Amino acid sequence: MHRAVQELVADEANDSLTIPIVAARAGVHATTVYRRWGTVADLLADVTSSRFSGDIVVPDTGSLRGDLERYAYDLAKDLCDPDTLALVRATIGTGGEQGAAACRGERQRQLEAILERDRARGENPPTLERTTDALLAPLYYRAVFTDDPLTPDWTRALVSHLLPD
Amino acid sequence: MHRAVQELVADEANDSLTIPIVAARAGVHATTVYRRWGTVADLLADVTSSRFSGDIVVPDTGSLRGDLERYAYDLAKDLCDPDTLALVRATIGTGGEQGAAACRGERQRQLEAILERDRARGENPPTLERTTDALLAPLYYRAVFTDDPLTPDWTRALVSHLLPD
Repeated sequence: MHRAVQELVADEANDSLTIPIVAARAGVHATTVYRRWGTVADLLADVTSSRFSGDIVVPDTGSLRGDLERYAYDLAKDLCDPDTLALVRATIGTGGEQGAAACRGERQRQLEAILERDRARGENPPTLERTTDALLAPLYYRAVFTDDPLTPDWTRALVSHLLPD
Repeated sequence: MHRAVQELVADEANDSLTIPIVAARAGVHATTVYRRWGTVADLLADVTSSRFSGDIVVPDTGSLRGDLERYAYDLAKDLCDPDTLALVRATIGTGGEQGAAACRGERQRQLEAILERDRARGENPPTLERTTDALLAPLYYRAVFTDDPLTPDWTRALVSHLLPD
């Protein structure tokens, strides 16, 4: 079922996703899908949550700058994948707050882990809100709302602005 | 037709938007809608473009900081409107790059006008890319991907981080 959704979402020619369409693609009865998920929004949120859980390992390079540069690089690579991007857009489109939460996934918790490790080293890192605004937000915005590339130089520059020397 | 789309999109109980559903709501034949727009993605992009054109006046307060604070405040108010937010999410969901462009709307051009006016005053403002990352991105990210409020204190803090004293 998850693969049927991902294939349908990745197919740009496919205009609107409905439970009967997904069921047909997966070769099951629509009633089976309705029983398990109820709505397209539930189904998409579930697929996106699975897709985003455990996909990025929280880096441990020994410094906050190193960790954030690595993290931003990995997240950029992940969001640039056309199938991931199509899934994020579709989930945002149908899911309301539930879909939005699925797209944020573990990101906040992963960033908090990086900041917490820096505090444990006796440092004074930026807040989670500030780090979200300076790193997560531009990565998601550029991937979802623009067709500009998420280059390694650009992700490094985001970290430099957050952590001036 | 535009109102039918906005009402349907704002109704959370409505799971998937299709041309026949929009046509029925607007009281016209589906073939009429297909002839004009072709796909739900085209229709949504059109509604979003109309909704976002001319909705925010570029401020002219006499200083870059004043202009950006006013602009961020206005954009936050706009994005917080539940109907606007539902429309942005639905357009991103179906529209691919065309939908994304409709959601960005005039934002880049408006920011460029603010920065250009500052250069004309003989100042050296940040680049458009940097301003997009520091202002537009967190505003869109917080509105679309989280349920955190877009408060005036927070939008002012975004400008302060972009323009340190």
